[in-house]
Amino acid sequence: MQFSSRLIEDAVNAFASLPGIGKKTALRLVLDLVQRPTEDSVQLARSIAGMRENIQHCITCGNLSDQTVCAICRDRRRDTSIICVVESIRDVMAIEDTQQYRGLYHVLGGVISPIEGIGPADLNIDTLISRAKSEEVEEIIMAISPTIEGETTIFYLNKQLADTAVQVSSIARGVSFGGELEYADEVTLGRSIVARRKL
Amino acid sequence: MQFSSRLIEDAVNAFASLPGIGKKTALRLVLDLVQRPTEDSVQLARSIAGMRENIQHCITCGNLSDQTVCAICRDRRRDTSIICVVESIRDVMAIEDTQQYRGLYHVLGGVISPIEGIGPADLNIDTLISRAKSEEVEEIIMAISPTIEGETTIFYLNKQLADTAVQVSSIARGVSFGGELEYADEVTLGRSIVARRKL
Repeated sequence: MQFSSRLIEDAVNAFASLPGIGKKTALRLVLDLVQRPTEDSVQLARSIAGMRENIQHCITCGNLSDQTVCAICRDRRRDTSIICVVESIRDVMAIEDTQQYRGLYHVLGGVISPIEGIGPADLNIDTLISRAKSEEVEEIIMAISPTIEGETTIFYLNKQLADTAVQVSSIARGVSFGGELEYADEVTLGRSIVARRKL
Repeated sequence: MQFSSRLIEDAVNAFASLPGIGKKTALRLVLDLVQRPTEDSVQLARSIAGMRENIQHCITCGNLSDQTVCAICRDRRRDTSIICVVESIRDVMAIEDTQQYRGLYHVLGGVISPIEGIGPADLNIDTLISRAKSEEVEEIIMAISPTIEGETTIFYLNKQLADTAVQVSSIARGVSFGGELEYADEVTLGRSIVARRKL
């Protein structure tokens, strides 16, 4: 791609370094910004730099936060006796969007994966154990993806939490609501029969 | 989408204002930036703001440029007797990428489109006419999309250029190289028979 402007080239390269954005898409974004008022670009630039410079991880739960302790941990109306353990901030947002949960969270920052060289020490596990030992917490819900790495992580955490008084649970797994039985995969369908519930 | 951080929310909204980027994609970009060094985000922000604040339209050809006159117009090795008229900077880049053209360009900034309310006065046409009247220019090539609006624009420009000494031409149209005849559309195939060339 030949650029007649160094400024355009730099901006395209900067956008193209983002995941899922190629040079053509980057050029489209840059040319769109050129056609819009300068204020829009300045605003975008300010949000990006400001976000990255001021964002921090909540010292309690590991969630991304504007302050030392995140908005969810600070919220007095939430149930502090339950902690939901998730892999990433994206899962926090997905669960918050359901509006079905009013407890706290704990963001691990990933799952144990020997293949990718991620061990328990690389994850935000120590703080979870110390939170579990505080008197307030009664239940810890594992909301971790049902993959091999996810199951390993749940197994590890469950063992670590064995000598605390908390009740450890896992989110329900089974056939999706609205899904047709014949299209559910074998493992899910098989396990959902084994783990059947009384009506 | 529930955000626990105002900073993340602002950055997601800023990204999502770009064309073709939804909230989910924007969140993916923002979380990617969070995981990378702060320097990357600062660099991206600086390129965006710097580009928009300093970019200008070349006073000669209308191309986007870092300086008052663009790099192509400044290039002494280029053939100043030919001007290729295009709709947008994207077309300049596409033609430059072919490495088949060493003349100058003229960027109209669009095509005449009564439906969208774009008339000749909204396009960069006056400067083209004055360039055509300078002694140096011998040929003007119309490299404009073969749509109804494009053809209208070519017709208009051709009329405006009638009382100048320049030769007006159009890029060749016909069946694509590597394309199969049976898949070419009727209009293209029909016209390519009418406009056949001697071998």
